[in-house]
Amino acid sequence: MYPKSIQKLIDIFSKFPGVGPKTAARFIFYLKKVPEKEVENLLELIKHLKKDIKTCSFCFNIFEGPGAKEDLCPICQNPTRDRTLLCVVEKEQDLVSIEKTDKYKGLYFILGGTIPILKKEKKKIKEKELKQRILHPEKFGLFAAEFKEIILALNPTAEGKATMLYLKRFLKPLDKKITSLGLGLPKGGELEYADEETLASAFERRE
Amino acid sequence: MYPKSIQKLIDIFSKFPGVGPKTAARFIFYLKKVPEKEVENLLELIKHLKKDIKTCSFCFNIFEGPGAKEDLCPICQNPTRDRTLLCVVEKEQDLVSIEKTDKYKGLYFILGGTIPILKKEKKKIKEKELKQRILHPEKFGLFAAEFKEIILALNPTAEGKATMLYLKRFLKPLDKKITSLGLGLPKGGELEYADEETLASAFERRE
Amino acid sequence: MYPKSIQKLIDIFSKFPGVGPKTAARFIFYLKKVPEKEVENLLELIKHLKKDIKTCSFCFNIFEGPGAKEDLCPICQNPTRDRTLLCVVEKEQDLVSIEKTDKYKGLYFILGGTIPILKKEKKKIKEKELKQRILHPEKFGLFAAEFKEIILALNPTAEGKATMLYLKRFLKPLDKKITSLGLGLPKGGELEYADEETLASAFERRE
Amino acid sequence: MYPKSIQKLIDIFSKFPGVGPKTAARFIFYLKKVPEKEVENLLELIKHLKKDIKTCSFCFNIFEGPGAKEDLCPICQNPTRDRTLLCVVEKEQDLVSIEKTDKYKGLYFILGGTIPILKKEKKKIKEKELKQRILHPEKFGLFAAEFKEIILALNPTAEGKATMLYLKRFLKPLDKKITSLGLGLPKGGELEYADEETLASAFERRE
Repeated sequence: MYPKSIQKLIDIFSKFPGVGPKTAARFIFYLKKVPEKEVENLLELIKHLKKDIKTCSFCFNIFEGPGAKEDLCPICQNPTRDRTLLCVVEKEQDLVSIEKTDKYKGLYFILGGTIPILKKEKKKIKEKELKQRILHPEKFGLFAAEFKEIILALNPTAEGKATMLYLKRFLKPLDKKITSLGLGLPKGGELEYADEETLASAFERRE
Repeated sequence: MYPKSIQKLIDIFSKFPGVGPKTAARFIFYLKKVPEKEVENLLELIKHLKKDIKTCSFCFNIFEGPGAKEDLCPICQNPTRDRTLLCVVEKEQDLVSIEKTDKYKGLYFILGGTIPILKKEKKKIKEKELKQRILHPEKFGLFAAEFKEIILALNPTAEGKATMLYLKRFLKPLDKKITSLGLGLPKGGELEYADEETLASAFERRE
Repeated sequence: MYPKSIQKLIDIFSKFPGVGPKTAARFIFYLKKVPEKEVENLLELIKHLKKDIKTCSFCFNIFEGPGAKEDLCPICQNPTRDRTLLCVVEKEQDLVSIEKTDKYKGLYFILGGTIPILKKEKKKIKEKELKQRILHPEKFGLFAAEFKEIILALNPTAEGKATMLYLKRFLKPLDKKITSLGLGLPKGGELEYADEETLASAFERRE
Repeated sequence: MYPKSIQKLIDIFSKFPGVGPKTAARFIFYLKKVPEKEVENLLELIKHLKKDIKTCSFCFNIFEGPGAKEDLCPICQNPTRDRTLLCVVEKEQDLVSIEKTDKYKGLYFILGGTIPILKKEKKKIKEKELKQRILHPEKFGLFAAEFKEIILALNPTAEGKATMLYLKRFLKPLDKKITSLGLGLPKGGELEYADEETLASAFERRE
């Protein structure tokens, strides 16, 4: 139906997370109508993303390195962050959500995924990299750090919980304090629809 | 369109919470087809609900009183419940949700609603009744009770929060410890979509 | 958690179409608070529904019979309705929807269901009753009727279509004109999301 | 929170139809991980879309022009299409939906939008271009065409209906047969939930 190259473009956009063929088509007709300049910006920024955006040697977060020498992201470089706290998150967006709360001043480690519940898929989380960074942060460019608490800030979903359980066992030999986030009713939530585990935790954590 | 008495029935069912005319009609054709016996049961139980189900003189929860003399519900009567804890909930269903967690062993008070955000509606919560019961439980049939903590277990919604704020001020003169439930990610929730307040609280309450 | 009789009431309301235990509980606390008079009305009307609401001997629609003698509903009794048209619907509500359009002036027949797609369930539609009424309407109290067109006004769902196909075969020997409703985009629908069959039909039926 | 160039990229993706900041961020981390080759393809195809994809001089549909000379899309060039039928659609995707039905063999005209219901926005539909093409198709590269029917295949939404009404008046002087798509229940739809207009039309179009 669509010209061949348009169909190819639809196929590529359809691989974007949460995008189907209809949405992909809408993207294309949007791009066809948008000013030349804006599209050029988009292409430039995507190239920049692939070429110049670095991944932090310690926490695996992405960052913009003005100088080629740097290997650490701004958070890991920041001397005012508390280097006794390490917060393990699944992905970059979770790190950003936590930073927005402005409540956490320690460092991060991006695990890169969770343990799949379905046996078929194979686990692709960075548990070994995590262990090494807890034991020898200096080997990865982070100095004057000694972690006293490892916060497993993963989603309280089935996958997230399985992963936290796995990591607790995996990190046990390191003999560090390992914590996870408190369950509770979210802002706007209702007791009537809360599961028992969530409600019990909200009760224990009352203040 | 429908026979007059059917239309009347639709109008009455349409006043049920969350029921519209189409659902009401479905209820009626369901009732028309259901066995006589089942409908008789329904009618009997509704009569029983209106006539014989009592409201507890202390906590306002409903209960089934075998003897006309009793005024207290089983929870308020239960000598093993902790009579130093009073949990204020909006409605009966919330009490049931909390009982299901099996984590709370104190008493309850059913507030009967929340403070409306929209000025128009008028407040119809039992704050005075609550105050009296905290000060003089014995006047309402509850003996050997002295509350040390008042738990405001209301929904962390706009209405619930406004009500908790109002009650904290209203109960201040009583000089009791007043707590509310801990915010946090619910089971199955995701950091990426959590609001900052919820996430900050989940962090502070980590363990 | 709930008093025994309340739990029983929850169980009965939970059998209502589209009602779960939480909604059932909400119904009960609504009924507990509602004025006595309103509840009495409800009970009276439900009794009336079971005892005095009749089923039409010809079309199986329900109606309010002032006199015990009547067996036909107002529509079947109405001499101004076109007795050459018979519209077959799945259930009473569909009849009401069609009457609201004010476009159809013929008679109806309520089939009482559709053919289940899943083999397990057993078919419980009134095809034999339909055939008899088309052949000998007078045997069922309807005189001066000779049907020239049978309109199968069933939902264009998988079940509805299977049922229409079945009825077309079943009624073939009667050698009557058999029609079904026109597919098309509904008011508020969008071409982009329409399936091909619907869109093709909308095209053929353009005017 | 995000590096500056990433934030810029989020802002640009957030302008895509139906994309918010969170989805935009997901797009970026997807692109960061995807193989270099795939991203190059994407960039090439987007460039191609902006530079080499042409817009048909007659119907405004996009097409891939092998030779710079061509101005007509394959459909308008196709001598086997019926040049007495012109189908007016809102956007390219609607044309594709109709082509998929394989029921329509005439030509198209892409209107480029609908009349806004809200006064504020200003109308940006190609009604004048439509009129010219109906009167003098040859001026736009389409020969041997004489339109006998103009099909207004717009969505039966508030905007679509207002636009069809407007076009009927606007095209009246041309004295052509003007039709629109038939309303009806869509595949999978239910009588009980259909609006009266849709149901009435489904009845009139029964067959």
